[in-house]
This record gives sequence, structure tokens and C-alpha cells, in this order.
Amino acid sequence: MSRPEEQPRDIRMRGFARRSSVDEAIAWVDGVSAVRADEQISLNDACGRVLANAVIAPMSVPPFERSAMDGYAVIAEETTGATEYNPLPFEVVGASMPGHAFDGSLVTGQAVRIMTGAPIPEGCTGVVPVEYTTAEGNRVCVTQPIPHSKHVGRIGEDIAEGTEVLPAGRVLRPQDLGVLASLGMDRVDVIRQPRVRIITTGNELAMPGSTREEHQIYDANTSILTALVARDHAVLESAERVEDSDDAIRAALTEGEVDVVLVGGGSSVGAEDFAPQIVAEEGTLPIHGIAMRPSSPAGMGQVGSKLVFLLPGNPVSCLCAYDFFAGRCIRQLGGRASDWPYRRATATLTRKMSSVIGRLDYCRVLLNDDKCEPLAISGASILSSTTRADGFVIVPPGSEGYAADSDVVVYRYD
Amino acid sequence: MSRPEEQPRDIRMRGFARRSSVDEAIAWVDGVSAVRADEQISLNDACGRVLANAVIAPMSVPPFERSAMDGYAVIAEETTGATEYNPLPFEVVGASMPGHAFDGSLVTGQAVRIMTGAPIPEGCTGVVPVEYTTAEGNRVCVTQPIPHSKHVGRIGEDIAEGTEVLPAGRVLRPQDLGVLASLGMDRVDVIRQPRVRIITTGNELAMPGSTREEHQIYDANTSILTALVARDHAVLESAERVEDSDDAIRAALTEGEVDVVLVGGGSSVGAEDFAPQIVAEEGTLPIHGIAMRPSSPAGMGQVGSKLVFLLPGNPVSCLCAYDFFAGRCIRQLGGRASDWPYRRATATLTRKMSSVIGRLDYCRVLLNDDKCEPLAISGASILSSTTRADGFVIVPPGSEGYAADSDVVVYRYD
Repeated sequence: MSRPEEQPRDIRMRGFARRSSVDEAIAWVDGVSAVRADEQISLNDACGRVLANAVIAPMSVPPFERSAMDGYAVIAEETTGATEYNPLPFEVVGASMPGHAFDGSLVTGQAVRIMTGAPIPEGCTGVVPVEYTTAEGNRVCVTQPIPHSKHVGRIGEDIAEGTEVLPAGRVLRPQDLGVLASLGMDRVDVIRQPRVRIITTGNELAMPGSTREEHQIYDANTSILTALVARDHAVLESAERVEDSDDAIRAALTEGEVDVVLVGGGSSVGAEDFAPQIVAEEGTLPIHGIAMRPSSPAGMGQVGSKLVFLLPGNPVSCLCAYDFFAGRCIRQLGGRASDWPYRRATATLTRKMSSVIGRLDYCRVLLNDDKCEPLAISGASILSSTTRADGFVIVPPGSEGYAADSDVVVYRYD
Repeated sequence: MSRPEEQPRDIRMRGFARRSSVDEAIAWVDGVSAVRADEQISLNDACGRVLANAVIAPMSVPPFERSAMDGYAVIAEETTGATEYNPLPFEVVGASMPGHAFDGSLVTGQAVRIMTGAPIPEGCTGVVPVEYTTAEGNRVCVTQPIPHSKHVGRIGEDIAEGTEVLPAGRVLRPQDLGVLASLGMDRVDVIRQPRVRIITTGNELAMPGSTREEHQIYDANTSILTALVARDHAVLESAERVEDSDDAIRAALTEGEVDVVLVGGGSSVGAEDFAPQIVAEEGTLPIHGIAMRPSSPAGMGQVGSKLVFLLPGNPVSCLCAYDFFAGRCIRQLGGRASDWPYRRATATLTRKMSSVIGRLDYCRVLLNDDKCEPLAISGASILSSTTRADGFVIVPPGSEGYAADSDVVVYRYD
């Protein structure tokens, strides 16, 4: 049995026929968010980037025996019996400095002045720290004995040639860059950052910094999305405000080379909500309308290789839909964990939190020590609810909410 | 009684006369790390920056009554009794679109098609969502009643003019930028990021990417410090490798305008450790030698307005001394909390962890669920101990260490 290809139905001003569950939407995101490419970058730019391949040490560190202290290199066994009251004298026959080896070999009764990091001279078997010596002319007296190999850093004691020093997928830490540098590397293969285009639609929007007309509001979503994209380590290709017109939105969705397009506003079923129809025509829109509050008019699909997220224009919905779906996609495209970058805390609800079965709720809360207070005013258009809040609590679709005094998990915004 | 000014004593190759406690060094850091200046920047660059002054709303948001839904604006009271089986008809007399108000006033029996964000027409007292209507020609039938004010966003419901929206010192979140944008602001006053110069000394150091001479090692510290400075939100003015010479180090410590100079290497009492003497001559060096392991040869002082941190050349010491002192200073100069940016976990030690009274120890550990295993090889020169480790445990100076099965706080590197 086959059926003719369905024409995308225009749902403007008709309402959503069916809402997807948050789990269905997340499953779609996880299915399309595989890493796309690697790139090689300078070590100086690599902190926080994701390693593309495991790194195998091409050399040993240190590559020669070196002193771990400032002091005197000696034959360690010859210091036996040295004390403050029985200082043992050695003839200082030269110096080994960092980068400048002592050119010779040591015999009994001799010492070589040596600095931390300098090569251990031939014949030496230990280093007496400067604190346990007194120098006079070309003699040094040792006041404490040292065992064999004391303060001698052996070849490869830090890193042995051929061992794996960092695994693929590592989010590079400052010290990881140090290890790569100590192996002589000044470039590293990392996962390419996803490239993101933001388009914000809405004829009512005025640009911050400009003069507003009477029935305009200032656009908040471009600023929010720009910051979220940076937080999730993507590269912002462009952020444009476009008019609510088919042509402008179609061009933004189809032109150029980006991995992700975020469309802020015009995602729902209003007469000027062009984007869903355009995505369905130019590609696929498998998810449109989600059983959650806020963000229920969110949608997502694909146009060519571009992953498109339709984010509602109400700023709390925009933030929430980004965090649930677009951010998760961007983090995975960049080789990162899909989880939210928010710290978690467990806290006790001061008041009940109501929801309905079948819908996920995103509730802004205040956090005072281990007490969690739901914010009273928290509509999708009340952006200040997310700046007054310390974080949010998720009520899953299977729950009607939480009673007062329940323990809940709070995701902290900061 | 007065005494003649003391000449800074040259301590090279003599050892530290006395070591400061970590608490003394931290107290010095906290005393010199006050915020220095503000600057005004674009909102697009402000995510994660620290707000210099509280922001008071210069306008209300929204600045006019607006619809919270796509649907039809009506006189709410006229929808009483509407159901699916008793749809109530209204004459559609026009449309109110975002940015384009309906030019007129409503009378009984009339409706205005309205989009989310559009101005509420005069005379309307509620909005019926499109889902609860059926349209036919210039008539619309309402199938659900709405109460007065339903889906009407009142003036200032998000932000009331004159209220404080964000406090001074706030680390700006994505949604904070949204709130500032919604107030029409495209610039914001933030605390200036500290400017940092890194100089790395050591004649034994080869630059990563170059060919190494026989007794050279590759410099790891410049890469580590560059990444740490970025992590702590400072601006790197320059990162230079300089030779171990008085002139080169003196120039780097005295020239130009930076807030902080980090000197990697040459901080101790070796013959080529010029930096401590130069800092003492050109300014003050109140802390040199600290009762901790690693990092005991660290020092800190001031040359003019520059805060100078002498970080030992051993890479683990360099990392640890940065994290204890320089990072704390840089974060506070930038208006941030002094605390480490590491997440904490509590875990149970699998083996004992030994220290000595009077010295603080920084111990690298592996973390497996709630088990914490000290790394066996963890000298100050073993940088790979910090990349194999999941984090570290601090043994305070008053403790001889922790017994196996003790619960300890682990600071997680990632």
C-alpha cells in the first residue's frame, strides 16, 4: 500500500492538530545532532574546545634526566653521615643550568651546582637542595644526607612516549593544553563548533538603542539567543531581524552554509507565522506544537542540511524552547554532553506547584538555602520572571505537580 | 625610634628565611584586589560580564496593553455562555497586528482579529484564543467563554518603569541581556576586565611547535596560564617567553599598562631566579615562599600599580599557585566572587592522605562515584597528574592528613 505524498497543510489560524511530547521532540533532536566535522586550531584557542581524537605522546617528558631542585648534584652515596655538625665538603667543578648542561662527568668528592630543570651531569646520582648546603669559594658543604636518585627526575616520569595522554571527546582544560604544549604540540584537532544563524521576526519589534514607535516593543530575543549560542560554544554566523514576510524568512532559511537556524518569533499558528509553513515546504517539519508550558508553539525540522528551530516570540518561551531543544542540539553538534549547563540543587517547596497530566511545566523559582519558592507571576511574556528567579523546576508530563514541602530538583540559572 | 630603610636582601642560593602561610598570602591578595574601573560595552558582548551599577527601568514593558494570544479581541463579557454546541457569533471589523494597531474602537457584537503582541483595541476587554473560534467570512464564532482581561497583557506587567531590574555586581545571564534589550538598552556599564601580562622565563624552554635542543623542554606554563586567564574572564594583553636575564624580566615587570603580571618560572631562590629580587627592588614583595605543597616557591607583590605573581616553573606548582592566589586576585579585580570556579563533591577516601602540620597540601585525586583515590605519582613537575586527575583535595595546614574512609571535599577540574 502506498499513499500519495501529503501536501504540507497550512495550519495558520487553525490551531495545532496534535502536540508532540517533549520526549518525542528530544528524541528527534538526538537523532539529528551528530558531530559534523573536525578542524585543527592553535593551542592558544583550544581551552574549552572538544578534542577530536585521542592524543598519543610523540615523545617522553622530560626527555632527559633533570634536577627537581636548586642545589648541588653529587654522588648521592657520598653524602652519608652529613649533618649540621658534620658538614661534608665537595669540590664544585661546574654548573648545570636549565638549557645548558655541565660538560663533563663527575668523580668522587665533586659536586656540580645545579638548578631546577637542569640536566643531571653524568656520574651524579642525586641532588642536595641548596637549603642543606653552605658554599665557600669553590667548595660546598653538605649538611644532610640524600638517598640514591633523590631529586632526580627520570626520563618519561611525567609522560612516557607512546601513552595516551588525553581521550577523544575531552573538553580541554587549562592543564590539558599544558600537557599538549609539553609534548611540543602547538596545534590540536578539535570538533568544529556548530555555525548558527539567528533570525528574529516580528513587525512589532524595535531594535534596542533605536527609537521605538508607539506600538512597538524592543526585541529581547536576539540578545537572549546570541548569549545562549555563545554559552553553548557555537559560532554565531549572523543575527538578523527580518520582517514578517514569506520572502525574507524563506531566504534566511535556505541561503548560506550554517548548521543551525534559530527562528525567534512567528513559530505558531497566527496569520503572520510564516516560518512553519516555509520549513514544511522547503524541507521537513516533524515537530510543531509541543505539550509543554511555556513554549508549546515551538517547532523543529530540517531544510537541506540546516537544522531549524522555531522558537516562540514570547521571550520566556523562546529561552525555554532554546534550552530544551536547540541548545541540546548545538551542544551535541559540538561534541558535548547534551545535559543542561545548569548546576542542580535539591530544595523543599514552600508552596504547591500545579501542573496538568500530559504537559511538562517549566517553573521559575526563588532559592533560599534549601527552600524553593515558585514565582507567582510567570507567564511566557514575563521575561523578568527569569531574571528574578534563581532557577527553575521541571514538572514532568506524568505529574499533576508537587505538594508544598516536596523535595524538588532546582536547575540554577547562575 | 626609627630604623634605616632595609635594602631588599638578595636571597638567591640561600633558601627561604621564613614561609608565609596560605592564609597570609590570601589576605594580601584580598587586600589589593579591589575593582579598578568600569566601562560601557555593547549588549552583544555582555554575557557573563559583571554589571557595574544597578539598572532602573527607564520605561514599562510592555508599554501598551497587548494580546498574549493569537485570536480575537472582544468585549469579554459577551462570550458568556459560549460552548462548542452554542457558538456565539461576532462581526470581525478589522485586525490588530504586531506593530500595527486596529484604528478604531469596538462596540457590542464586534471582534477584532488579533495576533500575539498586537495592541488591544480600544473597547476590548479580552482575547479569545484562535483554538476556541471558527471563522466564516467576516464572522467569527466563539466556542468558549473568557473572563474579563483574559489574555490581555497589561502595561508594565513584565517590568514597571522605575523599578530595579538588575542589581550591581550581577554576572549577566542570557535572560538579563534580554531584559536590558527589552528596555531599549543596547549598551551596558560593566566592570572592566583586568588586563594581564604573562611572562614565562627559563632558558631551558622551547616553544611548542618549534624544534627542541637536546636539553630543552617544551614550555607548558604559557599555555596553562593563557587558558586560566581566559577562564577567569581577564584580557590577555600579551604572553611572552623571555630569557632568564635581569633586563628582560625588569622590562616586563615595569613597562606598559596592565593590572596583573604573571611570571611563570624563576620565582624561587636559584641563581637565575631574578624576578623576586627585581620585584623587591622596583616595588614590594611582601610574600615570598609559602607553606604549601606544591607552590612553596611562589611569591607576590606590587610594582607601581601592577600586581605581580611569581609562579614556580614546575607546571603543577604554576597551576596551583595561580589557582590559590593569582586567579583569586583576577576574579576580584573583575568584580567576581573570589571562590574557585570548580564544582565541589563529597567523597570517601580509598587510601589515607598524609600531610604535615603547618603546610597546606594540594592533592590530585581520581573520583569514582563517591570514592576518591589519591594519585600515587603527583610531584610538582608531573603535569600529567592534573590531567589524569578528576580534581583535587586540600589538606589544611592544621591537619596531618586524612585517614582512609574519611569523607573529603573534592574540587572537580571539569
